[in-house]
Amino acid sequence: MSAYEDLMAFQRETEALGQIMGRLGWDQETMMPEGAAQQRAEEMAALDGVLHARKTDPRIADWLEAAKPADPVAERQLEEIRTRYERTQRVPADLSAALARTTSLAHRVWAEARATDDFDLFAPKLIEVLSLAREKAAALADGGGLYDALLEDYEPGATEAELEAMFSALRPRLVALRERILEADTPVPALNGHFAEDGQLALSAELAKAFGYNTIHGRIDKAVHPFSSGSGLDVRITTRTAPEDPFNCFYSTIHEVGHACYEQGIDTDYLLTPLGRGVSMGVHESQSRIYENQLGRSRAFTGWLHGRMKDTFGDFGIADSEAFYGTVNRCTPGFIRTEADEVQYNLHVLLRFDLERELIAGRLEVSDLQDAWNERFFKDFGVAVDKPSNGVLQDVHWSEALFGYFPTYTLGNVYAGCLHQALRRDIPDLDDHLAKGDTSPATDWLKTAIHKHGGFLKPVDVISKASGAAPSEGPLLDYLEAKFSEIYRL
Amino acid sequence: MSAYEDLMAFQRETEALGQIMGRLGWDQETMMPEGAAQQRAEEMAALDGVLHARKTDPRIADWLEAAKPADPVAERQLEEIRTRYERTQRVPADLSAALARTTSLAHRVWAEARATDDFDLFAPKLIEVLSLAREKAAALADGGGLYDALLEDYEPGATEAELEAMFSALRPRLVALRERILEADTPVPALNGHFAEDGQLALSAELAKAFGYNTIHGRIDKAVHPFSSGSGLDVRITTRTAPEDPFNCFYSTIHEVGHACYEQGIDTDYLLTPLGRGVSMGVHESQSRIYENQLGRSRAFTGWLHGRMKDTFGDFGIADSEAFYGTVNRCTPGFIRTEADEVQYNLHVLLRFDLERELIAGRLEVSDLQDAWNERFFKDFGVAVDKPSNGVLQDVHWSEALFGYFPTYTLGNVYAGCLHQALRRDIPDLDDHLAKGDTSPATDWLKTAIHKHGGFLKPVDVISKASGAAPSEGPLLDYLEAKFSEIYRL
Repeated sequence: MSAYEDLMAFQRETEALGQIMGRLGWDQETMMPEGAAQQRAEEMAALDGVLHARKTDPRIADWLEAAKPADPVAERQLEEIRTRYERTQRVPADLSAALARTTSLAHRVWAEARATDDFDLFAPKLIEVLSLAREKAAALADGGGLYDALLEDYEPGATEAELEAMFSALRPRLVALRERILEADTPVPALNGHFAEDGQLALSAELAKAFGYNTIHGRIDKAVHPFSSGSGLDVRITTRTAPEDPFNCFYSTIHEVGHACYEQGIDTDYLLTPLGRGVSMGVHESQSRIYENQLGRSRAFTGWLHGRMKDTFGDFGIADSEAFYGTVNRCTPGFIRTEADEVQYNLHVLLRFDLERELIAGRLEVSDLQDAWNERFFKDFGVAVDKPSNGVLQDVHWSEALFGYFPTYTLGNVYAGCLHQALRRDIPDLDDHLAKGDTSPATDWLKTAIHKHGGFLKPVDVISKASGAAPSEGPLLDYLEAKFSEIYRL
Repeated sequence: MSAYEDLMAFQRETEALGQIMGRLGWDQETMMPEGAAQQRAEEMAALDGVLHARKTDPRIADWLEAAKPADPVAERQLEEIRTRYERTQRVPADLSAALARTTSLAHRVWAEARATDDFDLFAPKLIEVLSLAREKAAALADGGGLYDALLEDYEPGATEAELEAMFSALRPRLVALRERILEADTPVPALNGHFAEDGQLALSAELAKAFGYNTIHGRIDKAVHPFSSGSGLDVRITTRTAPEDPFNCFYSTIHEVGHACYEQGIDTDYLLTPLGRGVSMGVHESQSRIYENQLGRSRAFTGWLHGRMKDTFGDFGIADSEAFYGTVNRCTPGFIRTEADEVQYNLHVLLRFDLERELIAGRLEVSDLQDAWNERFFKDFGVAVDKPSNGVLQDVHWSEALFGYFPTYTLGNVYAGCLHQALRRDIPDLDDHLAKGDTSPATDWLKTAIHKHGGFLKPVDVISKASGAAPSEGPLLDYLEAKFSEIYRL
């Protein structure tokens, strides 16, 4: 075998072990008995040790030096392997293991703290996690910016400065749009009533299918925090239900289906290779958000959903499809990011982006985090946070040391805005299909333009190629202002 | 750290990785999407490679040489590690790989052969598996007996000669008891009717709880074949349902709960160490069988179960508890080991024990195996096997090279007989508790006498210590003859 073949065989095993790690995470959130947490932490730490040893194996350096790429795909595989290798080598094995162990326990403590609204319970664990995360950032940064070093894990090529510039352009127009909507006093009916869980789950499964999710290679379970997990031939999603909020279930499902279809749509030539996964979190989020919002919350698609909800739950008080479209897109003050509408969502993210940059830079202490959160929230949303579970404890990310992850949510929305503009141009009659619950013209377009490439095209490249222009926040803002000006008659 | 501590830290990680492998097996049988099989095979092969490398790691030899055990537990840990390491060293890597490859293929051919009732399809594969198994036995035996060498994987310390002596004493009395029962013509009602799946699963969960299964550290799911999986803080079981056979569900559950409670009851000091698992297959089976049979199929407990079944399913045609006790323990002619009653079960096992010893010794050719099976079956059961799926093709074990596994089923029953005699002596009013669905006096007794020791006491030692005498077949035979003489009025 050639050096390239040896290297790829080795990588294939590493990717397979990485899939197992993902499966343990899925199990932890969906199936694991609560008393197994301590043992699971040891299991994941042991596997993390194995993965770390493989990712820093000195043979990789030899193979990389000897390997002769035969084509552009091989060239990208090698580039990807080289980048990851150099990064992983910088993080000591014991730090990697400590992070795995600490975050696994911190996650449990966070869940308890959120349930009991007790930030002080979580704070000591968060201090540990943050300290390890900063240590990791310093090791990776090699003299460069700490936050840039962390970003690279989620959005290769992105920088704090670029994101800050883009987000600075977003924030004032979003704050302004939000204020105009909330001051408009336009009557948009709220959803009321009790929606049976079995009906929610059945319609949720139907929505997953309508958006192209393949359950031969996946499954849907319930979890506290919806997520998508796995790559290749086993891509699982979760959703959740609340009796009075079926939209949460439906749009969580569509969102996760967007992630899952990206993974399921990747060219099988890349299976269990470094290119066999979505290329970045931002591009991933662009898929989940375009599925959820630009398609799933469109006037045409909500018309179809309105009918299916009436079939499933009977009359629920909103007889008119146009009114239902407003209901689905209703903007109200709220504390929770994952429940936020399209207009306010990014303001939630920008808050986290700014706070976590302060934490990583060491300019903000965990002991001051809750106050900082509440102050900033009041500034952008004009409301005082009433309890930690509605504020600083609402998200899982920091308990898992995912600093640098949040901005990819908004970046994903920006990308989705670009892609949506392009696919509407390419598919003029898209609404005719969406109105029948058929998303395939759009999801097929995305599969061809984005999904199949996996990691072959870099984030900015795949978005630029698909949308015909360099990514910018303009299309998203134009789309939001047009859509909500119409709904709220601004 | 001392050499002992280094070694134990290494072992702890290996055990944790072994637990992950078990979890993947569980997922495959309960949760995995059908289209994920190919990827899962690669994932498990990658993890198997990691485990094999750790088990043959030369540092183990160094640590073993340098380690100074500080107490009897440390001494046993080292003994266990040494034994496993030396055994793993004796099997050449290419033989190990050939066995993995061949059994994987043979397993698939066996499934097809069983489905099409075609022994000739399976025979060539079995010849290959047998040849490799004999080669492995020779490598392990190091001049000793081939079958003894294989037994060691399942029942450390057991020998072919001892088992043969014990089983020779069992066979005539079991054959005689079976004949007397079937000739007695005593009316014992069969169970008839349709039992709703949700009722079966609810009562199954109640039975699991009644037998002490702790779902804080476990969970129950459905699978085609019931099994127990995992050790320590995460021990999961599966069960199955068939509309006309709720006993299959209930007693599969109780059986697997027996295995699971053994694992859950092990002293947590042994967590993720070589002593942190049940000590042998025979002792494991003694727990599953005493839960299932001596306790679960006792007159007192079936009285309680009878009431719960009436509560759950309404009138199902057997109004009287005494008649129900007969129904639960009903003996009928049958071909299939896994469906056999307490009397006939061991005759199925003895047949396999004798045939596989002949195969391993080279005194029986695979080409003569089917005839040998049918001849022996007719001798012990008085019925001609009608098709291979009811005969030589019914069990998966030989396709997977599990020669030496079968006798542990009967050894487990023998051990269960000894333990049952002892615990009845110690708990004179046990039936008063069982009649109320309370198994705790017995299961607590077993936890103290057996479970908590994990791998610290060797198989024969733990049984002897608990039952107050060296294991023998006498108590099992006495129990069976008394129980079934009464039910069948012999």
